Parts: sequence; structure tokens; C-alpha cells
Amino acid sequence: MTKTGILYGVGVGPGDPELMTVKAWRIISMAPVVAYLTANSTESTARDIAKPFLPDDVIELKIDMPMRTEREPAQEAYDRGAAAITEHLKAGRDVAMLCEGDPFFYGSFMYIFARLADRFETIVVPGVSSITAAAARMGRPLSARNDVLKVLPATLEADRLREELLTAQSTAIIKVGRHFGKIKNILSALDLISKATVIENATRANERIRKVEDVEGDSLPYFTTILVYTGSETW
Amino acid sequence: MTKTGILYGVGVGPGDPELMTVKAWRIISMAPVVAYLTANSTESTARDIAKPFLPDDVIELKIDMPMRTEREPAQEAYDRGAAAITEHLKAGRDVAMLCEGDPFFYGSFMYIFARLADRFETIVVPGVSSITAAAARMGRPLSARNDVLKVLPATLEADRLREELLTAQSTAIIKVGRHFGKIKNILSALDLISKATVIENATRANERIRKVEDVEGDSLPYFTTILVYTGSETW
Repeated sequence: MTKTGILYGVGVGPGDPELMTVKAWRIISMAPVVAYLTANSTESTARDIAKPFLPDDVIELKIDMPMRTEREPAQEAYDRGAAAITEHLKAGRDVAMLCEGDPFFYGSFMYIFARLADRFETIVVPGVSSITAAAARMGRPLSARNDVLKVLPATLEADRLREELLTAQSTAIIKVGRHFGKIKNILSALDLISKATVIENATRANERIRKVEDVEGDSLPYFTTILVYTGSETW
Repeated sequence: MTKTGILYGVGVGPGDPELMTVKAWRIISMAPVVAYLTANSTESTARDIAKPFLPDDVIELKIDMPMRTEREPAQEAYDRGAAAITEHLKAGRDVAMLCEGDPFFYGSFMYIFARLADRFETIVVPGVSSITAAAARMGRPLSARNDVLKVLPATLEADRLREELLTAQSTAIIKVGRHFGKIKNILSALDLISKATVIENATRANERIRKVEDVEGDSLPYFTTILVYTGSETW
């Protein structure tokens, strides 16, 4: 009987390939199959990041995601992806699923994990998340001492964002994208805009860092994070 | 004239040396000087983690921290550490300061950064933080979709902890240590205790994972994190 393969959820970090962990590098170098999500069968940020470490003869398993906001087509895509991964695992081949940042920090890996972890040995390799990468690139602490740090998806309703911002010392607003205008208005109204910095594509070649008050327009790339700091700066 | 050295704040990750980034590995392998905080001139968790990657001939600069809670002795220790690092940088030697987890995620590196970054080129290398490592080891997502994620130092007052816990979908309570009893009481009172898992020394040899309700006593090791999840689990 063939021994079944191991499923790895591998965080490849925020963008700079050197910010992959040694463990991610080892697993990606040795796994016979790598899997990743793609949009329109082509783009995969996670694959771009891991590219320098992919062996020439690796089998690449693309899980194509429909570019729609409805829940059902995405669920069907995860079902198909899980089925394709299952075939490899049953044949005894380890599968490394590549995940931007960290697999369990607002990642899509959980959808594959939920479908397969009870049937196959599954190992999650944590990665550097976009929020600590953003702070490193801005050159200022993300959080210190007794600060309350909050991570707020920009998709939340304005009232909720306002309420949470008011009681945090440090806030990372993630998935900013087309919600930038809304966020900027909220930060202005709360008089927090001077303490807010925005970073697009942290640690990637097209990285861009600006003060939120200097940015015009309502929309920025999806991989945009805003950090707001109101804690004591008596470092 | 000698070119001055570069100061690196290097995150070495949560404990497993393989969870160091490739970048941290490269910098630690090449820097002529590594610096780190010690308690009583001996123990350094960050050095323990980086040990497999330290060259034999590296100069080790220990910054000894007084084991007291007052602010002033610690500030003096950082002043002395910054002065010692300055000597190496002025002599043209790069200095890599080793930091557990991520340098800017509740780390001590900010105290050295605040003293030196305006005078010397300083590069911060982000690392895997304890909270995503904890989720990976527990085998469950840290946060998903539109969850509000909060990081709460266990040192906060009970009222504040209660308030923040009530409005989060996911919470990481860090630096639990001697505050465990307080935290357990709060989680019981809020009826959250069945959703709370505690991890000591995540990814280290002495790692231990338990349900909070199964743990007796008022105190646990300093490097203890509690994750509480109340978001939707319809993954």
C-alpha cells in the first residue's frame, strides 16, 4: 500500500522572496507538487514569490478562482482544488500549497485545510505577515509595551471601523484596495489622518509608501495596508 | 575615512530555527557582530534560536538587562547597549541585533532603533511573529475574511481586556506569564473559555498546547499566548 502524502500550507511571506522562511524554502524545494490559487489561470502572487526556489521538475497544480464576489463559485473552486490535491496525496506525493504572507492570517489556505486536514497529515508553516513587513519598511514599531493592536479589514462598515480605531493604540487596516476613499474619510473625521501611513505592495519591487493625507483618489491596489499609530512614542 | 557599518534589526522568529527567514540567515551569516539582550549575562532566547547560523568567529555583544520592572535601569541598559553598538558601526562593522519573533512586534529593538536609526543606516528584517506561529501549531486559522483581530497584552487592566474581547472575532493575548489566573477568570466570566486555547513556547522543544479550561494555577511561562476565536467557523 502506498503511504499517503503530506499536505503543507506554506507561508511565503509578504513579497520579497528572501523573506521566506528556511522551512518554507526546504519544503518547496523537496515537494513533488506545488499548488496555488490563480486568477484567470495566470497570475499568482504566491508563485511569483516562491519562483526562485521552485525545482524545474515540480508538478504545478493551479486552482483557478472565479473573479466574482459571490460565495458559491469560490466554494466550488475550492472543492475542485481539494479534489485535485487529494489525488496527489493518495498517490503518495506531498503537496505544498503556496500562500502569500501567512496561511492562517486572513488567508485562503483555510478553505483547503477545512476540506482535507481531517483526512491527511497537514502541516502549516507560518510566514512573515504583511503587517510586520509594513512596519519594518516604514521604519517604525508596529506595537509596543501595553499597546492594543487591531487588524481591521477595510471591508468592514464605517461605524465599526470608527469604533475600533478609537480604542486602539495601533491599527493595521488591511485589504484597502477600493475602500481607500472610505478609510481616508474616517481617519480625517477622527483626526487620525496625520498618524496614518499607507504602503502598497510591501517589500515588492513596486512598493510605495506615503502619508495617507498626501494620497488622492478612492482606490489603491488590493495589497495595500494602512498603519495608524496613536500610542506613546517615548521609545 | 572608514565607511560606517549598517545596523540590522533581525527578527529570528518564534523559536524553531527553521522559521528564520532566508534574509535573516544571510545577514546573520555575514555580519561581523551580533548583538542581543541577556538576562543576568547568560540567557538569550534570540541567540538560542539563531545559534545554528552563527559563524564561529562572530563578535558577540551582550546587552545585559536588569531584571526589574522599573523603567530607569532598563533605559540605562539600552543607553549602554547603543553606545557599544555605535563603536562597532563607527569602526565600519555591521551589527545584527537578534530579536525574537519580529523586531517591531512588541519587541525591544525599538529602544535601540530610537537611539541609533537617525545616525546610522538601519534595516529592519521582519520575522514570523508568535501569534501566527501559535495558530499554525494549533491547526486553526488566526483570522479570516472580515474578522477583527486584536492583540492584547495580558498586562492590561481587566476592564480593558473584557471590553476588547467582547468586540473581537479573534484575539491573541500575549505575554500571559503570571497573568494567567486573571485572564482565565475574565474568559470564564465572558463565557469565552471554551473557545480559548493556550500555547507555551510555540514551535520550541518545550512547546505545550492545552485548552484554557483544562489548565490549573495562576502562572505560566512568559512566552505563553492564548488564542480566542469567536468568528464564524463556516470555512
